[in-house]
Amino acid sequence: MSLHWWQGPCQPLDHVARAKAEARQQQLTKPAGSLGRLEALAIQLAALQGSERPRLDRLWIAIFAGDHGVVAEGVSAYPQAVTGQMLSNFVHGGAAISVLAGELDAALEVIDLGTAVPLETLPGVRHLQVGAGTRNLAREPAMTNAQALICLQAGCDSLLRARAVGCELFIGGEMGIGNTTAAAALACWLLDCPPAELAGPGTGLDAAGVAHKVRVIEAALALHRPQLGAPLQALVHLGGFEIAALVGAYLAAAQQGVAVLVDGFICSVAALLAVRLNPGCRDWLLFAHRGAEPGHARVLQALDAEPLLELGLRLGEGSGAALAVPLLRLACTLHGQMATFAEAAVAERPA
Amino acid sequence: MSLHWWQGPCQPLDHVARAKAEARQQQLTKPAGSLGRLEALAIQLAALQGSERPRLDRLWIAIFAGDHGVVAEGVSAYPQAVTGQMLSNFVHGGAAISVLAGELDAALEVIDLGTAVPLETLPGVRHLQVGAGTRNLAREPAMTNAQALICLQAGCDSLLRARAVGCELFIGGEMGIGNTTAAAALACWLLDCPPAELAGPGTGLDAAGVAHKVRVIEAALALHRPQLGAPLQALVHLGGFEIAALVGAYLAAAQQGVAVLVDGFICSVAALLAVRLNPGCRDWLLFAHRGAEPGHARVLQALDAEPLLELGLRLGEGSGAALAVPLLRLACTLHGQMATFAEAAVAERPA
Repeated sequence: MSLHWWQGPCQPLDHVARAKAEARQQQLTKPAGSLGRLEALAIQLAALQGSERPRLDRLWIAIFAGDHGVVAEGVSAYPQAVTGQMLSNFVHGGAAISVLAGELDAALEVIDLGTAVPLETLPGVRHLQVGAGTRNLAREPAMTNAQALICLQAGCDSLLRARAVGCELFIGGEMGIGNTTAAAALACWLLDCPPAELAGPGTGLDAAGVAHKVRVIEAALALHRPQLGAPLQALVHLGGFEIAALVGAYLAAAQQGVAVLVDGFICSVAALLAVRLNPGCRDWLLFAHRGAEPGHARVLQALDAEPLLELGLRLGEGSGAALAVPLLRLACTLHGQMATFAEAAVAERPA
Repeated sequence: MSLHWWQGPCQPLDHVARAKAEARQQQLTKPAGSLGRLEALAIQLAALQGSERPRLDRLWIAIFAGDHGVVAEGVSAYPQAVTGQMLSNFVHGGAAISVLAGELDAALEVIDLGTAVPLETLPGVRHLQVGAGTRNLAREPAMTNAQALICLQAGCDSLLRARAVGCELFIGGEMGIGNTTAAAALACWLLDCPPAELAGPGTGLDAAGVAHKVRVIEAALALHRPQLGAPLQALVHLGGFEIAALVGAYLAAAQQGVAVLVDGFICSVAALLAVRLNPGCRDWLLFAHRGAEPGHARVLQALDAEPLLELGLRLGEGSGAALAVPLLRLACTLHGQMATFAEAAVAERPA
């Protein structure tokens, strides 16, 4: 069997830059450790960027959108047409992530991987139309192997475009009515965890809706489990186009040496899948927030990830990651611009 | 007995603006509640500013600095000279808060309330020199009644300067070697709580140092308790110049109708004291972070405050509050700029 592209090696961390950044942190005019997690962040970014004083000026946000056949089972609070309507909202500047991208001076790319009703061409959207949404994972595999490979490549391609313009931080976002069901099904398989522990209200199901969603996922897992031997097969049977693209983007980022800021539940499931496909990918992933979807905490735990924020977010679109960007940037600015004890003639703590 | 200035009424909230902001949140193109705490923040700021779409463009950061006589008891990891050295670092741009103020485009005011060794005039610093630091609260009252009133007024004056230039958010910061001891002593009295539960390492005491600090605070409380009947007396006996100024600034902010973002442990103790002096003040206080100092969580709980961040910070200077500003600003921008369902022609959730 030939190797897939994503099995190639990830970039190593720069341990010299890390050591220099650690030494610099000890010399800044503050009690050692008093900036808490911001100190570790600056040091981690130094190791990722290979620079004693990392920067996060150039930010790339890619929104991957796709519809989900499993919506036929009644697992979402919103009609499926919203996926396409939101694509238009993304490029017209009215969505949360559009507003955030503007405020953060980030490049925003919107990729249509396939809506249930194919869209008219929207200026500013890359229409890949891998299919008319996925098929209903409660009844059959969500996608073909070929579709999965195309979506993984679509994520990789986005990352390469980001890399080409010098992107220092990549954020993947997602939009797809029904995608918390696919993500929960995938996470259940990856973590060998019952759906009742990972399925949640998504955009706003009530308790009865969540209970129904749990039964749909249980049935889907029972249907597909005999065919699932490896993470890639789980992606084909249980995933979504946008989830596959996120997986591809994260893997490519690690191979190209671009730091990633992972958003919410769906993105974190994609991150878990990426790490299962290529464990070296983990070093390149930073985690922005712990969201309201109950499965998120469990997936983060499996990734040994301690996110920066916990604000009860459950929007997706990459919005939670975007909200954490100022903290990362300020961590870099403090690290790079604060005076040292010697520069400021401030007494250090007695040894 | 005549009324003190801070006992005057605080500004009421604008319930019409709040209701309008709540209605607007329901119409923005996202599942209701999906922006979590940012939605409540935008609505709260609308009520404080009396505007359906609040803004946080103009930010004022005042650093209040003063020395503490209790340092003679060996309660700090750093020499007392650092207070004065850091004043110079603040105005020369090398301190964490200086870097943050620059990044946030905030006005930064530095107020010297009294260092142990009076400083040469530093351009950019307001030298009030209320005393050569406080006296040693382990042996005698930390300050006179007159000094406390001057410091309260100094905080009020800073807030009035901020108000005069249209400040939309006030951050008070503090610098003072030894001030976690004073703040812990005050909090112990205000919360009727043993020092072992509230005293912590401050800038970096080891376990033996913390145990000693606990004993110093226990002795101080035993010494002063017979004279303490009201919060103002506790401030005089156990406080610090910078703590008193923070109290004055917070009370004046509530009276003038300026929202406050409270920083870490010491600022939160000042906020608790302010609320005890004038309970109407509480509405005007937002809380930025839960810091590493163990007493901070307890003080926040007493204030019924759920801060935005938890990053293990323990620097002071207002730095934790400054780090939370981008989240507040983004909450306002999302609230003000996102499209409504009608504007974007996106389907709402079926009723």
